[in-house]
Amino acid sequence: MPRVMVAGASGFAGALAADLLWRHPDFELTTVTARTEAGQLLSDLYPRYRVPLMLETLDLNRQAEVDAAIVAYPHAAAAPVVHDLLERGVRVVDLSADYRLSELQTYEDWYGPHPHPEHLQHAAYGLTELHRERIADAALVANPGCYPTATLLSLAPLARADLIADVIVDAKQGVAGVGRAPNYDTHLSFIGENLYPYKVAGHRHTPEMEEQLALLGTHVKLQFQPHLAPFDQGQLTSAYVTPTRSVIDDELAGLFEADYADEPFVELVTSPPGVRDVRDTNFCRIHAVSDHHTGKLLVFAALDNLWKGTSSQAVQNLNLMFGLPETMGLS
Amino acid sequence: MPRVMVAGASGFAGALAADLLWRHPDFELTTVTARTEAGQLLSDLYPRYRVPLMLETLDLNRQAEVDAAIVAYPHAAAAPVVHDLLERGVRVVDLSADYRLSELQTYEDWYGPHPHPEHLQHAAYGLTELHRERIADAALVANPGCYPTATLLSLAPLARADLIADVIVDAKQGVAGVGRAPNYDTHLSFIGENLYPYKVAGHRHTPEMEEQLALLGTHVKLQFQPHLAPFDQGQLTSAYVTPTRSVIDDELAGLFEADYADEPFVELVTSPPGVRDVRDTNFCRIHAVSDHHTGKLLVFAALDNLWKGTSSQAVQNLNLMFGLPETMGLS
Amino acid sequence: MPRVMVAGASGFAGALAADLLWRHPDFELTTVTARTEAGQLLSDLYPRYRVPLMLETLDLNRQAEVDAAIVAYPHAAAAPVVHDLLERGVRVVDLSADYRLSELQTYEDWYGPHPHPEHLQHAAYGLTELHRERIADAALVANPGCYPTATLLSLAPLARADLIADVIVDAKQGVAGVGRAPNYDTHLSFIGENLYPYKVAGHRHTPEMEEQLALLGTHVKLQFQPHLAPFDQGQLTSAYVTPTRSVIDDELAGLFEADYADEPFVELVTSPPGVRDVRDTNFCRIHAVSDHHTGKLLVFAALDNLWKGTSSQAVQNLNLMFGLPETMGLS
Amino acid sequence: MPRVMVAGASGFAGALAADLLWRHPDFELTTVTARTEAGQLLSDLYPRYRVPLMLETLDLNRQAEVDAAIVAYPHAAAAPVVHDLLERGVRVVDLSADYRLSELQTYEDWYGPHPHPEHLQHAAYGLTELHRERIADAALVANPGCYPTATLLSLAPLARADLIADVIVDAKQGVAGVGRAPNYDTHLSFIGENLYPYKVAGHRHTPEMEEQLALLGTHVKLQFQPHLAPFDQGQLTSAYVTPTRSVIDDELAGLFEADYADEPFVELVTSPPGVRDVRDTNFCRIHAVSDHHTGKLLVFAALDNLWKGTSSQAVQNLNLMFGLPETMGLS
Repeated sequence: MPRVMVAGASGFAGALAADLLWRHPDFELTTVTARTEAGQLLSDLYPRYRVPLMLETLDLNRQAEVDAAIVAYPHAAAAPVVHDLLERGVRVVDLSADYRLSELQTYEDWYGPHPHPEHLQHAAYGLTELHRERIADAALVANPGCYPTATLLSLAPLARADLIADVIVDAKQGVAGVGRAPNYDTHLSFIGENLYPYKVAGHRHTPEMEEQLALLGTHVKLQFQPHLAPFDQGQLTSAYVTPTRSVIDDELAGLFEADYADEPFVELVTSPPGVRDVRDTNFCRIHAVSDHHTGKLLVFAALDNLWKGTSSQAVQNLNLMFGLPETMGLS
Repeated sequence: MPRVMVAGASGFAGALAADLLWRHPDFELTTVTARTEAGQLLSDLYPRYRVPLMLETLDLNRQAEVDAAIVAYPHAAAAPVVHDLLERGVRVVDLSADYRLSELQTYEDWYGPHPHPEHLQHAAYGLTELHRERIADAALVANPGCYPTATLLSLAPLARADLIADVIVDAKQGVAGVGRAPNYDTHLSFIGENLYPYKVAGHRHTPEMEEQLALLGTHVKLQFQPHLAPFDQGQLTSAYVTPTRSVIDDELAGLFEADYADEPFVELVTSPPGVRDVRDTNFCRIHAVSDHHTGKLLVFAALDNLWKGTSSQAVQNLNLMFGLPETMGLS
Repeated sequence: MPRVMVAGASGFAGALAADLLWRHPDFELTTVTARTEAGQLLSDLYPRYRVPLMLETLDLNRQAEVDAAIVAYPHAAAAPVVHDLLERGVRVVDLSADYRLSELQTYEDWYGPHPHPEHLQHAAYGLTELHRERIADAALVANPGCYPTATLLSLAPLARADLIADVIVDAKQGVAGVGRAPNYDTHLSFIGENLYPYKVAGHRHTPEMEEQLALLGTHVKLQFQPHLAPFDQGQLTSAYVTPTRSVIDDELAGLFEADYADEPFVELVTSPPGVRDVRDTNFCRIHAVSDHHTGKLLVFAALDNLWKGTSSQAVQNLNLMFGLPETMGLS
Repeated sequence: MPRVMVAGASGFAGALAADLLWRHPDFELTTVTARTEAGQLLSDLYPRYRVPLMLETLDLNRQAEVDAAIVAYPHAAAAPVVHDLLERGVRVVDLSADYRLSELQTYEDWYGPHPHPEHLQHAAYGLTELHRERIADAALVANPGCYPTATLLSLAPLARADLIADVIVDAKQGVAGVGRAPNYDTHLSFIGENLYPYKVAGHRHTPEMEEQLALLGTHVKLQFQPHLAPFDQGQLTSAYVTPTRSVIDDELAGLFEADYADEPFVELVTSPPGVRDVRDTNFCRIHAVSDHHTGKLLVFAALDNLWKGTSSQAVQNLNLMFGLPETMGLS
């Protein structure tokens, strides 16, 4: 059974990845590491996750006897850990932004200097439904950011059909996306009974999404705007597409069914999806409709930002990388 | 001191209107009516509102000794009450949709037969900042729907300057907008930890907004999409405008300041507004910005859907109608 | 594999029971019934539960080819269904109050006439940890009310040791306990930012708890007071025991460990438990402490009112009844 | 018009006190200070409070030209500021714990060394309803802790009548009571869908409550247990009293009416109070009932922990100290 470690297991994404691997029938979770919380039981930090492993300080000399690792570090901090793991022959799913973009310059425009750009070109982009084959063979998988998964699953069928003339994505997510470190955005006295846009006119997931759309043949400037809402897990993206030509409902439905009918974790629905529908699951639930009044195409996608948006998609990718059924441990 | 009644005071909008009038220094709230809750104290239905009046069955023969009325009835049910009040010489602020549209046909397309279309043409549209003068003289004010206030305040400066080539408004509101009658949309086990779009591709506030934009010289098909979010009061609209020409930040700021610098209840802010910032107030807080990447103009507006979105704007209008300072009883 | 039906699967308790059985490796869920929602897919009513069965009208002539049934009906409505199932040789876990009390008179004092009192005496009380042996052999298991599970698990070690002179239980639960039918108690505009006691001085779970304590040798008048809090699933009980003699922490810990160390679903913890710790699980998490200032014993218990408080405990009992490992399908 | 400053206006309590004074018709708020946020506008920190004053560093040489001050500092940090203000002849309402206890030893047992114990004896305890006369004349008022106000208002009528043999108070409050600095207790991902006890068996408000009960003639060891619940402002206390003799409902009601019928901010109600009923008000809403089954007396009290629990009660006391009507600026 493949042995797996989670580096950075004290944050929300790493802890959930650890929990999913702990309960996975075909992976053995051997090691969980953390920087400041080393020495604590993971189950004490996260009572809901009953993972009875002690968090350790990262020390690859002791811990690298693993076949794979999920790295849940902040951008820039992840790259050196990824590098060391790859050097030791460990296959890696990196949850950070460090290897999502193919162009070094784009990375450095948004994130600053890249510690190990040499792996940029051979990393597979970890949106499973778009890059399944590359992921299966990759030594390094760059898991998507929390917003691109929903956005790209919403737009891919339209991008492939060259139907996108202009597109606006208005996204709403819960505070789990902000992370574990307490701040005013996650303080109930501030976010309770509240909802607001953030990173106005310039979210750094935009280039990642534009690059992926370009790979599908659509070159477009994406207007992407996230909002924070008063709940914990989950994300809804509302995409408003001005089509290159008129599209009726039947054609629209056909495009989505052609792409997703056989996908185990994409649910096409005929009524508006809610984030609660997919909470604690790896599903992305999508509703596409044509607006007869404006002629625009509307695509709504709901997913759990910690699950399909991050950690369960990482496990989905690990399944592929080790030749396991893609749904193993996820349903 | 003008005497005022609230017809339909058991719902959220009517009850807040009653509370605002009860505490108003220059109006006397004499009567509150309700259909099924008559005989109960308003303060028992709404402990937060300490209005010690008994809800009565509507009976204009007994109650019409008032100078003004706020009518908080559902559409179609409101028109006959409005009619009877006008017949008796009572000035009316109607919170329903019945007199917001100037065209009977448009009304009937969305709402069905109109019981009293004869008042459509002389009703003033009650978005105070746009129609202050007409409101002051009106016998009948049709208070805006809960979404049009934020949307129109966001778009008016751009519409007047003929800058809107295309526009999408993505709105998010709390469950107070759904109303007092319990249903699955307001049940905490359904809306808690949830967020979803509703009335997809066809919200009936759209014609009202398009008509008002047309009055400002902009004829555009508005893509308007509301979402329900897990909080009580408040509303955020995110407007994405494709401009007719390039607009830089300074010009954009100038347009909004020219229109709103002297408005007592519009707050222009330089950071993203949150619905909590304006909770329990008559303020609408607006942030406009130009996106350098896409060239689009983004306008975010937050207001309290029960206050500026409904009931406190009704009082703002009543102040105007009776020659009182517009801010009286509202700050 | 035993075939199981859930009668009354459209409510919160029945729907979760159906979901647990659907995913259970050793039961086959064959039928789900509902009274007013028959004809709908269970997964449409509850998107989170991906149970693709159609809700049917109850008709035992067609549906009784099952080995067991979970009955999730309101009290008084449950008894006739339970009766019919028992007549057909189907083993039953009844989630209602109908068979929890041993004395008919007590039942009728709190609930009114009992439609089928003849099964009262042979029903096993379904608090697994207290009545494991009787449950295993029972044809009819009366699953506990949502509050008694936490309360009795908190008090049983003290009751057995004859340590309870007086006891007050202050309970707090989320709105899932109120049920699926929308009302003001579950309306986010009423329960949001709120918390209040209900059924003051007279909750009908009291006799059930007092009877069970009496079986353990403790005859006491229990002061039980529930409160409703603004969250969905979960329940915390805070028990304040005036002991019959002084008890130090070590003795207290020893009593709880003696009873629960081997229990798979009782977690003894050394810090205060939160309802979130046990959300979506069959665990009851307990923290007992002696207050040096007052001499009282404090026992806090958290559980998920829909899971261990109702439906997953029903499955725990079904496991016992069919000779399966008690934890099967629950971890 | 008396000039007032708020020292420590960047925290929740100080900011609300500033807002109340800013809108108060008979006080002039001249200065707001903060330690780390000096230089920021108070209205930027708290958009809901539209107080357009700049936060300053505390410097009594410049700022002491005031008649009164509300000091909102943590315990131990407050005493030196209070001391300096008193030296300059400024009357003070201190929101900290520093002057609530009459015995130095008790203070030091719970809080450590006291920087200025010399003011302990002449401070008036600021629970208005119990100490109105002393407060009116005091140079220093020690405002109660957030829990004692509700607890003492609940128990005072019973304590005066010597009816309390034993008492347990189970309290629940929202996260506003935890304060502005973000931590895990206020992080929505931790407190959302959660509820838990804290400071188990040893809350430091206990001696303050016991001392006040003793002043009313009742010497009792109070079992006080707070819980944190997923909402912002508000507090409910549930008091369970074992009476010294049997008390029927009529006598109980009479005791509370005798004490509170004329109190402007105590509301006696005949149904269970909710924290939402008193949100953003200075009211404490109380429901007392005798349990016929157990013979115990139950008293439930709801208040807003930031308002009557802290800052609006401070203004209520300031009104008294300056000979103004007690309700001025508070209704």
